[in-house]
Amino acid sequence: MDRRSFIKQAGLATAGAAAASTLATPALASGKRKLTMVTTWPRGFAGVWDAAEHFAKNVLDMSDGALEIDVKAAGELVGAFEVFDAVSSGQADMYHGADYYFLGQHPAFAFFTSVPFGMTAPEMLIWYNQMGGHELHNKLASDFGLKSFLAGNTGAQAGGWFRKEINTPDDLKGLKFRMPGLGGKVLSKLGVSVQNIPGGEVYQALSTGAIDGTEWIGPWADEKAGFQQIAKYLYNPGFHEPGAALSVATNSGVFEELPASQQRMIEIAAGETHIWSYSQFLGQNADALQRLINNDGVQTRVFSDEIYAAFGTATKEVMAENMGDPLYKEISDHYNDALSKISGWRSIADIAYLERRDAFLKG
Amino acid sequence: MDRRSFIKQAGLATAGAAAASTLATPALASGKRKLTMVTTWPRGFAGVWDAAEHFAKNVLDMSDGALEIDVKAAGELVGAFEVFDAVSSGQADMYHGADYYFLGQHPAFAFFTSVPFGMTAPEMLIWYNQMGGHELHNKLASDFGLKSFLAGNTGAQAGGWFRKEINTPDDLKGLKFRMPGLGGKVLSKLGVSVQNIPGGEVYQALSTGAIDGTEWIGPWADEKAGFQQIAKYLYNPGFHEPGAALSVATNSGVFEELPASQQRMIEIAAGETHIWSYSQFLGQNADALQRLINNDGVQTRVFSDEIYAAFGTATKEVMAENMGDPLYKEISDHYNDALSKISGWRSIADIAYLERRDAFLKG
Repeated sequence: MDRRSFIKQAGLATAGAAAASTLATPALASGKRKLTMVTTWPRGFAGVWDAAEHFAKNVLDMSDGALEIDVKAAGELVGAFEVFDAVSSGQADMYHGADYYFLGQHPAFAFFTSVPFGMTAPEMLIWYNQMGGHELHNKLASDFGLKSFLAGNTGAQAGGWFRKEINTPDDLKGLKFRMPGLGGKVLSKLGVSVQNIPGGEVYQALSTGAIDGTEWIGPWADEKAGFQQIAKYLYNPGFHEPGAALSVATNSGVFEELPASQQRMIEIAAGETHIWSYSQFLGQNADALQRLINNDGVQTRVFSDEIYAAFGTATKEVMAENMGDPLYKEISDHYNDALSKISGWRSIADIAYLERRDAFLKG
Repeated sequence: MDRRSFIKQAGLATAGAAAASTLATPALASGKRKLTMVTTWPRGFAGVWDAAEHFAKNVLDMSDGALEIDVKAAGELVGAFEVFDAVSSGQADMYHGADYYFLGQHPAFAFFTSVPFGMTAPEMLIWYNQMGGHELHNKLASDFGLKSFLAGNTGAQAGGWFRKEINTPDDLKGLKFRMPGLGGKVLSKLGVSVQNIPGGEVYQALSTGAIDGTEWIGPWADEKAGFQQIAKYLYNPGFHEPGAALSVATNSGVFEELPASQQRMIEIAAGETHIWSYSQFLGQNADALQRLINNDGVQTRVFSDEIYAAFGTATKEVMAENMGDPLYKEISDHYNDALSKISGWRSIADIAYLERRDAFLKG
């Protein structure tokens, strides 16, 4: 499928930029401006909502109050999965979310959150900041009238919550499981009935039995969401999102109207938020994992080699499926080439170091 | 030694803030202000100079030109290792450098660059941003009239350049080798004659035989410095700097005079620079390593287990040496506790993932 057909399918064409010039909030006489940011997150959801708020506060403070970003939770203005179209069409000014929710708009958005067996958060930043990843993100986003920046990262995600032990690939068959993005497509290949449910609706789906299990983020965010009350087996490591990035996307027309100094504030605030967010998730996970084990009776499990091999085989099939789309192929090839280069140096530097450091810490 | 004696020794007491109020550049009538930033780097040095310039441009752009940071190379206003005292005393407004150059002012500054067998860059960010590392940095820096932010990271450093193979700990004895920070003190324990030489002077010291070998940063920055022309053995992984952070420190009096919005620009620009810089180093290393091997005849080597064990034993001795200083002990204990927590979760999440991902990439 070529990328124009995705756009046509989404019914957007180049409407984004055009709509923005008529619908954008006018600048106030005081020189102050308020932008509406819709998000894919429930208000106050650990980590993901924090990243959206942190970004907005960065911009507010640096602009001395001149550029206010009004952060809306999922459902307050539009639903979680409607934020993309809302900003593309000019109904809202910006969104904060995970771009892999928008595979229906274009499957290559997966690369700007996380793909199975793909880059970890630090690797993602190297590709994005220095090897052309950001340029590709905007090549893709500009077709939808969006200007995008990464602005958050969960780090390597937990493999997910299960009500029963998963010992062989057969144990996955027929499970109703929540997993968005290309990871979900991988599980489908293994016979899982995959559901793509916004974060704010997962607990209810799990508690009513609409799903048998779920992944969300990791110990801290998952503990806050309460999954340990229902499912007791937490599997690791996740194959599906080794470093899930969050994005801020601004309607292109709105972005272009901003003064250059405020455009740079958005860019730099997003960059700082990315690493602040990653630090927050990782800084909280260690204590949360201990609480889950000690207070909630959670049992941690490691996916077997056989299951991991099945994840790997299905991932290769899924990653090949959209290669007929030229932009998907361009981004996929670029991403994989960057990953190969980055992992080569890391294997003799920090990965080799970590093996020796861990021995030192135990010694 | 208590920390007051370090301050007294440096002859600074609380002079920094007081001096600033008399010597600080006055705000111009236009509302524009120029701050002088001295650095520990030669003009144009790969990665490290880039980080200083990137930070300054971030601030200039976001302030719409109102806050200009004039970046000075080592030697232009003061020498590389004099930047700390220059900013502390108010002779310059800010510095960009590596804080482990200032162990003479206080040995705990080592923790805010990198310590042997310590945190990698991502781990450092987690500790610094979320677990109290930044607060400790400023507790230490404020005694010298400085306000500090991390603003750059080299990633895991290469082990160093040698003219001959190093097969056993005995081969290190009597070598004249450049290594700053606590890593240098570790090598001293192993019989190395350790030199602490600013980056801009290392090539000459190596080419004249004043030193037998050196570490600097990694393939890309080292290639630019030209060490491959003289020493042909590049050893990995480095034990000494698993993720060397760079810092921006502003004279406290100067910082406090800035409007709150510009203080936040400095903070956020530094945070974004940190990850931009890390991305730059890592993004360049893979290609640089191939050039060094293919074009310059460099031979890569891995430190033997025996040598690594010797590094570990000596590191434990060195890390214990300053524990009589209460602030050193406070920072050291906090750092090690954070490292233990962070590495616990990472070992079952991203480290476990990376093993399986690397098998997938090879498969």
